[in-house]
Amino acid sequence: MSNDLTARRKGVGRGLAFVVTGPSGAGKNSVINRTMAGLPSLEYSISYTTRPPREREVDGVDYHFISREEFAERIERGDFAEHATYLGDSYGTSRSQIDGMVARGVDVILNIEVEGAKLIRRDGLGGHTVVFVFLVPSSLARLEERLRARGSESSEQIAARLDVAKREMDALGIFDYLVINDDLETAVAELRAIVTAERLRLS
Amino acid sequence: MSNDLTARRKGVGRGLAFVVTGPSGAGKNSVINRTMAGLPSLEYSISYTTRPPREREVDGVDYHFISREEFAERIERGDFAEHATYLGDSYGTSRSQIDGMVARGVDVILNIEVEGAKLIRRDGLGGHTVVFVFLVPSSLARLEERLRARGSESSEQIAARLDVAKREMDALGIFDYLVINDDLETAVAELRAIVTAERLRLS
Repeated sequence: MSNDLTARRKGVGRGLAFVVTGPSGAGKNSVINRTMAGLPSLEYSISYTTRPPREREVDGVDYHFISREEFAERIERGDFAEHATYLGDSYGTSRSQIDGMVARGVDVILNIEVEGAKLIRRDGLGGHTVVFVFLVPSSLARLEERLRARGSESSEQIAARLDVAKREMDALGIFDYLVINDDLETAVAELRAIVTAERLRLS
Repeated sequence: MSNDLTARRKGVGRGLAFVVTGPSGAGKNSVINRTMAGLPSLEYSISYTTRPPREREVDGVDYHFISREEFAERIERGDFAEHATYLGDSYGTSRSQIDGMVARGVDVILNIEVEGAKLIRRDGLGGHTVVFVFLVPSSLARLEERLRARGSESSEQIAARLDVAKREMDALGIFDYLVINDDLETAVAELRAIVTAERLRLS
């Protein structure tokens, strides 16, 4: 009975894609990394980007850091399930990477800028079931604090990110879940709960 | 920002109703009781029933045990948001009890027989947002084991419950989540995750 029944769940045999989006500086990377630590069968889809690595970011782990030329070629070849430009840098999600993960029966978690997430909401992600989590800081003041603590951008770049963040908040309503990253442990517990619950969903 | 944003969640200011349903003997009471222990702002809606109390069941805690006459009067007065009959006994959910809880800003969890849950799925529950969780044992053998361990019914009654259970499984597809109660701790963790996640849902 049990085997028959689990097959009635939405993600079973098809794989779920969890898109974590939200303003830059909301803490998407930290929350995703810690969430994955406690959950089996959940793998991170490493995005491609033309932006230079920040301190402590590792090529092939945090992102695939590639040149603008290679990015353009990959667009041309249709390698990206979605791609978007944020403050002059491009970000893309590899179609084959996601298909490969889902084929192995694992769920995928993706860190996507808001513009890219809006595109996925509109166009889908290669036919996979997508769950959207909007991660925000508790306030813009907190966001600014976090961007400054990161120490990787100039004051002008931070001002630009805050400006974009304000506009990005408007997109909130099109996503499925809202997680407020005020306390990291709470945000991680909430994202884990979302993944766990979605895996129990009936189709 | 945070205050504004949380107001965009589905349950905020309106209250969510979690209907836990599934075959008799699936362990709905145990799972609900333990789930509530770890979650704030979640209260149990005590059903009315004409069935006699089982050993250790307390009137006004597990159920309101009432006569058939009182049950009929309550139907007449429109007291029940839903009511259904299961193996000759009637079960009803008090409309005013749920409205009162939701007005106090808490979420409500209900233990409802499958027939009653189907009615709520069809007709709603006084306009409240309802989330349906179908709880099942890992197998019919396990279910039989549990019904026997309970020691409150005869072999004929158990056979009847198993018979109904098989039919009730067909209703599965109309509900939102499937929790398999093989291991109690796991089932409790899963129901908690569902409540936590649904509270983060955007409307």
